[in-house]
Parts: sequence; C-alpha cells; structure tokens
Amino acid sequence: MADWQKITGGITAPRGYQAAGITAGLKPSGLPDLALIFSDVEAIAAGVFTTSQVKAACVDYCRQRLQAKHSARAILCNAGQANAATGNQGWFDALESGMAVAQALNIPSESVLLASTGVIGQRIKMDALRSGIPKLVAALSETGSDAAAGAIITTDLVPKSIALETTIGDRPVRIGGIAKGSGMIHPNMATMLAFVTCDAAVSPGLWQQMLARAADRSFNSITVDGDTSTNDSLIALANGQSRTPAITEVGAESERLEAMLTAVCQHLAKAIARDGEGATCLIEVEVTGAHDELSARQIAKTIAGSSLVKSAIFGRDPNWGRIAAAAGRAGVLFEQENLQIKLGNFLMLENGQPLTFDRAAASAYLKQAAMGAYLQEDTVLISVSVGNGYGVGKAWGCDLSYDYVRINAEYTT
Amino acid sequence: MADWQKITGGITAPRGYQAAGITAGLKPSGLPDLALIFSDVEAIAAGVFTTSQVKAACVDYCRQRLQAKHSARAILCNAGQANAATGNQGWFDALESGMAVAQALNIPSESVLLASTGVIGQRIKMDALRSGIPKLVAALSETGSDAAAGAIITTDLVPKSIALETTIGDRPVRIGGIAKGSGMIHPNMATMLAFVTCDAAVSPGLWQQMLARAADRSFNSITVDGDTSTNDSLIALANGQSRTPAITEVGAESERLEAMLTAVCQHLAKAIARDGEGATCLIEVEVTGAHDELSARQIAKTIAGSSLVKSAIFGRDPNWGRIAAAAGRAGVLFEQENLQIKLGNFLMLENGQPLTFDRAAASAYLKQAAMGAYLQEDTVLISVSVGNGYGVGKAWGCDLSYDYVRINAEYTT
Repeated sequence: MADWQKITGGITAPRGYQAAGITAGLKPSGLPDLALIFSDVEAIAAGVFTTSQVKAACVDYCRQRLQAKHSARAILCNAGQANAATGNQGWFDALESGMAVAQALNIPSESVLLASTGVIGQRIKMDALRSGIPKLVAALSETGSDAAAGAIITTDLVPKSIALETTIGDRPVRIGGIAKGSGMIHPNMATMLAFVTCDAAVSPGLWQQMLARAADRSFNSITVDGDTSTNDSLIALANGQSRTPAITEVGAESERLEAMLTAVCQHLAKAIARDGEGATCLIEVEVTGAHDELSARQIAKTIAGSSLVKSAIFGRDPNWGRIAAAAGRAGVLFEQENLQIKLGNFLMLENGQPLTFDRAAASAYLKQAAMGAYLQEDTVLISVSVGNGYGVGKAWGCDLSYDYVRINAEYTT
Repeated sequence: MADWQKITGGITAPRGYQAAGITAGLKPSGLPDLALIFSDVEAIAAGVFTTSQVKAACVDYCRQRLQAKHSARAILCNAGQANAATGNQGWFDALESGMAVAQALNIPSESVLLASTGVIGQRIKMDALRSGIPKLVAALSETGSDAAAGAIITTDLVPKSIALETTIGDRPVRIGGIAKGSGMIHPNMATMLAFVTCDAAVSPGLWQQMLARAADRSFNSITVDGDTSTNDSLIALANGQSRTPAITEVGAESERLEAMLTAVCQHLAKAIARDGEGATCLIEVEVTGAHDELSARQIAKTIAGSSLVKSAIFGRDPNWGRIAAAAGRAGVLFEQENLQIKLGNFLMLENGQPLTFDRAAASAYLKQAAMGAYLQEDTVLISVSVGNGYGVGKAWGCDLSYDYVRINAEYTT
C-alpha cells in the first residue's frame, strides 16, 4: 500500500515553485522549445548525469556547479539543439545562457542549472535564446508545470508529468516531476531529461544519495534502444517550503521521502519507455531469486533491451526461448536448472524444463496489451526467477516495431 | 601484404578431411539439415563457445569432451532444433547423437564433437537424426565442403566458406572454414556456428590460444543485434596431414599460422555480419589511438552495435553525432577533446570540434555501399580516433532495416 496520494500540478505542485514554457524559435517546427523552473528560495539540488565520455556542455556545466554548491534556484532547458560535441564554442554558449537567465531573474549565476536536448553537434540558436529569456521569465507561474513539460519534449508523443503527496511530521510534503524522452534518443534528438521538485527540507548529501538510488531503480532501468545520450540529466530540487522538519539522517522519514521520490521517478521512467519510438506496449520485466538487487536488475535490463524479445512481443509471439537466451547472456551467473519464465500468467519454463502451455491464449494476452496502448493495460509482464536468492529487480522497455526503423532511418539530412 | 593465398575447397581444402551435408528431415522446409566433418586421423581440436548461462546441450557436451581430450575426428552438426533449454532429455539426446555417429564411423565416441542450431526449447528430431546418420557417413567426400556449408545454415541468404594456403618449412599448409549465422540469432533460429579445418601440426595448447585470440578479433567483434546465442560454437581441427614440422612454441611460424587462422575467421565473421537479417551493407568500424587493443575493440563494437548508427546508415544519413554518442557510452575513458570521426574519406569531427563537410557527397558514399551489396564495395567504413595510444581495434556490423523487424516479428507461432 503506497504511503502517498497522487495530486495535480506537476512540478509546481510542491510549495514555492514556478515554471514556464514558451516558443523561443529554437525548434524549426515552431513548437514550444524553452522551459524554466524557478524556486522562490534557494533549494537543495542533486543531479545524476550521463556516463558518456561524449557529453553536452550543459552536463559539464551542471556537474561543475553542483560540485561547488549543492543548491540552486533555477533550471533552464532548451529543446532543438543538444549543444553536445560543439567544442569550445558550445561551452561558452552554455555559460552565456546561464548568465542571461540569472540576470533576468536577478539571482547569482551560480544558482542556475542548464539542460539541452536536440541535434548533437548543433549549437544553441543563441539569438533566439537571448530574446526568449525575458519572455520566459515573464511567463513564470505557479501553474506553469504543463507549459514547461510541453517545452522540453522533442518527438515525444505525450508530455510526461506527475505529482505525489505524503506527510512528514503530520504536515504535507509534495514531490513533482516532468520528463522527456522518446527512445533514449530520437533521430538526432538526443536525450532523456527529468526535473523533480520537492518542498521537503533535506540535507544535501542525503538528497543526492536518495536521487542516485531512485535513478538506478527508475531511469537507469529503462531501455528503448540501448543508446545512452550525451545529454541525459536528472535534476532534483528540495526547497523546504513545506515547512516540515528537516530530514538530515536516515530513518523512517527519509525512507518515506525516498520511496515517494522513487515512485515519481518510476512513473516518469515508465512513461518514457511507453512513449518509446514506434512502441505499441510497455514491457515490464521482474527478476527474482538473484544473488542481489544489482544482479536481478542486470538480467531484467538485458531481457527488456533484447531486440529479439522486443520484436517477438511486437509480433505477439509468446517466444520464451528468446527470454531464456537474453537472461543467459546478461553477464550474471546462475544455474540453468533453476530458471523459471512466466509471460503474464503463463508459466513456460520451470526448473530449466520447458512446459506445455496454451500458445493461442498467450498470444491473445500479448495482443490485448497492444490494444490498451497508453492505458494501464498496455503492459506486458515478463517474470523470471533464476534461483533462491533474495535479489529482486525490475526493468522496463517497449517493443520494437517498423516505426522505430522508420523514425530513425527516414530522417532527411 | 598478406602472406597467403586464397584457394578453393573450403573445409576440405586442407589435406585429410572429408565432409558431407544431407537432408535428414529435421527442418520443416525439407532443405539440407545435417552436416558432418571428418578427419582421416585424430586431429588437435580447440573450441570457443557461448558465454551464455543458458546453453545448448551440445555446448556442454563439447566443453566436457575438449576438457578431457584435446583432439577429435568428427563434428556432427544439425540444423532445425537448437537443443537448448531442453532439460535432461536434451542432454541424453546429445549423448545419443554422438554415440550414433561414432558407431557409424567406427571411431570412439570421445572423438566426436557436436553442434546444433534451430529453435530454442525444441529437442532434436531423434528419429530423423538416427536414420540420417548412415546416409550422412556414406556421403562423406573430399569435395564435400559446400554440401556441409549448405546443411548448417538456417535463414542465411548465402553459405559462408573460405580456404587459405601458406607455407611452413617450404611446404604448403591450408586452413579452411565454414560458418552460419544471419543475425546472431534468427527468429528462434539460434546461433552462430563456425568450423575450421587445418592440416598443420600444432600443439594443443598453442592451437587453443591461437583460436581464442582469432575469435576475439573476428567472431567476437561482429554484432548484428546484440543477442548472444545459446549455441554459439567455433571449433577448429588441426590434423598434421600437411606433413610440415610440428609447431610447438611461439615464433615466426606460429605467428604466420595464427595470422592465417585470424584471416579465415575474419572472412567468415564479416560474411555473417554482411548476411545480417535485413542488412543492406557491411559496416566496418576501426578505432585507433586507444589505450590498448581491448579498449579500441570495445569502442568499435559499441559503434557497430548501436541501433541509431545502424538505422542512420540504412537511411543513408551521414549522422556523425550518433557515432560520437556511441563512442562516448562504450565504457572506455577518453578525452572528448581528442575525438576524431571519419565516414569513408569524410572527416567530420577533429579534436572534438565539428567540421563542415559535403553532406551530399557523404550521403552518396553511403548510397553506393548499398548498391554494392554482396560485393566487396558494400562496406561502409567508420574510422574513429580517441587519442594517442597504440590500441587499434576493429568491429563489423550491418545496418538496421525494416526487414530486420519483419523477419523477427512476423514469425507466426
């Protein structure tokens, strides 16, 4: 039973946050392309960024800022140009963007974080950005979450947003989040981005630890095409405006807050996987019986990321052999004799021995998942057990369809 | 300048080998499905097998045999059923297959190795296999390489075969090879298999080391869809029938033999990548300037395996940003400032700074590669430099097309 409830308002649901999203002219399409998140007071800030050796200027910028100071007041995000692999000029563009926002908000530039998404190798259209910033700041609003969520997307089919509320010390505390990503990467449109706001008061070290664990259990457990972006960023602010007691050490209250943070991140991560390029359903893989959580998650991710499993599910083929093969190559030791595979409620392999099952019914199970697209029922559940260990892990992905190839190949340069 | 020449004859080009391939009724299609390779004398035998935790009975069988004895006289290979994830019964089927061949050839069953390819979770059709074996042995011939190469394929579009000749101690020595694989895995049709024959005399330890290194530089450097099979096997025999001096230690002669063995393996590996499911061209990635060969190969493999790079090349889009992104996430440290990317002869990124290049000409370069399919000119060359190290590595892959999805999804159970 979850210890929280869903509320409306996205990233502006927590107290003391404003957001905005406008069209600044960065995207050729003329759709909204510039977003701002603003905290009324300096907020504790934590971030998790791409592990790629090739990274955008904004990623270097945020890493340096957060190393120097564990707090921030504003996050500026542009869509259209990734500002990755843009050399020295890209770095200067990032610095200038941060300074321009700081000036317009009348805050120190040290309190501004940045994110970009768009074409790798392209610089931000700085003229458009410069003239857009005053308009963006003027648009800030306590109901601006949807506008911001709409301005950070590229080829996403739907914006992704959530807010949850729980109590700490008998007072309400809220976490909101928005994210973008349609596939790990769209044709040239790099990136998964997620921004989380929280009005609890937490110490910086604890907040960073919570975020890193939540990222492992959510964004790091989804896979659309296995391509990590140069710009992937998850930034979380906690501004203390709930006026609840500060959480400074691990205990019941930090665990409650972390569980809610993880739920927010998992909701956004699943929304990204469901919106995977060309996807017709969400695939959830649960692995049990592994040595530890990490091993379980590793197997789950390998299954969720297998092109063969993904295309079998697109073909509505209950092909458990591919699930077994993917589990086997995950790089985690287990005894083949202990392997058990279930697709939905259909048990297909037990103790390493194939079972007879109703193929037509299993195929029908896969077919109804497609028809439920964008509803709760669009999920195909794969359950795998590899032994008697206590390690449990989940991963999410989507099926591989013709449209994935079309979207990624038929891009005209 | 290569130190050898291409000859005809495949795996029966080396002295003292016979081969056969027949239709035993294992494949529903009625195409050839049972192959045998036979050495006139006991041959030194080395093997490299799948690293998957879920592995076929024949893989366990070969590992046990080669652990007990470093030689063999026969390799039996069936296509149609993978005999993987088939439980205890699959193991007994493998044992029985080995004994049946040994009996028909009048050799000890310890001298028989096995390989299977086909549907995971399906047992070998033992009745068909039993009645096929006498026919198969009767068909053995010193010109039987093509028949064997044709009987081990599943959905491959072309059989894969090669033979090379060099001299050791002024006398000719030959290595022949056949392989199958169309994608790492076909819809249910698991597996990459390769069989190599050699008539040199080599000590068992040296032969195994040579084969392991050659496998790393060939079969372990190709990727079609990232799915390692449950049945992957590479087996190499060396029977000494060239009557050349035995190679028992590392030196000029062992290096010459290893270079030729590597060339045979690379030819077969590239043939598998070129025949990747739905592929229209071969992608060769060369990485230089890395710390060591392993790091270079790791980056090359990540680029060759990236769904985004693969679909960009299918779309004939000279999208170097995706190559940069794939290099960055390979798990190898390098300085982004040192990154250089070339597509064919088009330099696109130097010292981490994007360059202007002729996009139309670069796209034309990609287009002509597709038109050269199945010729030497079907190769798209990606050259990446990551620094000043001496590490050089290559990997091969193919583009990702609609047909990959069609082949893997439109399989009706």
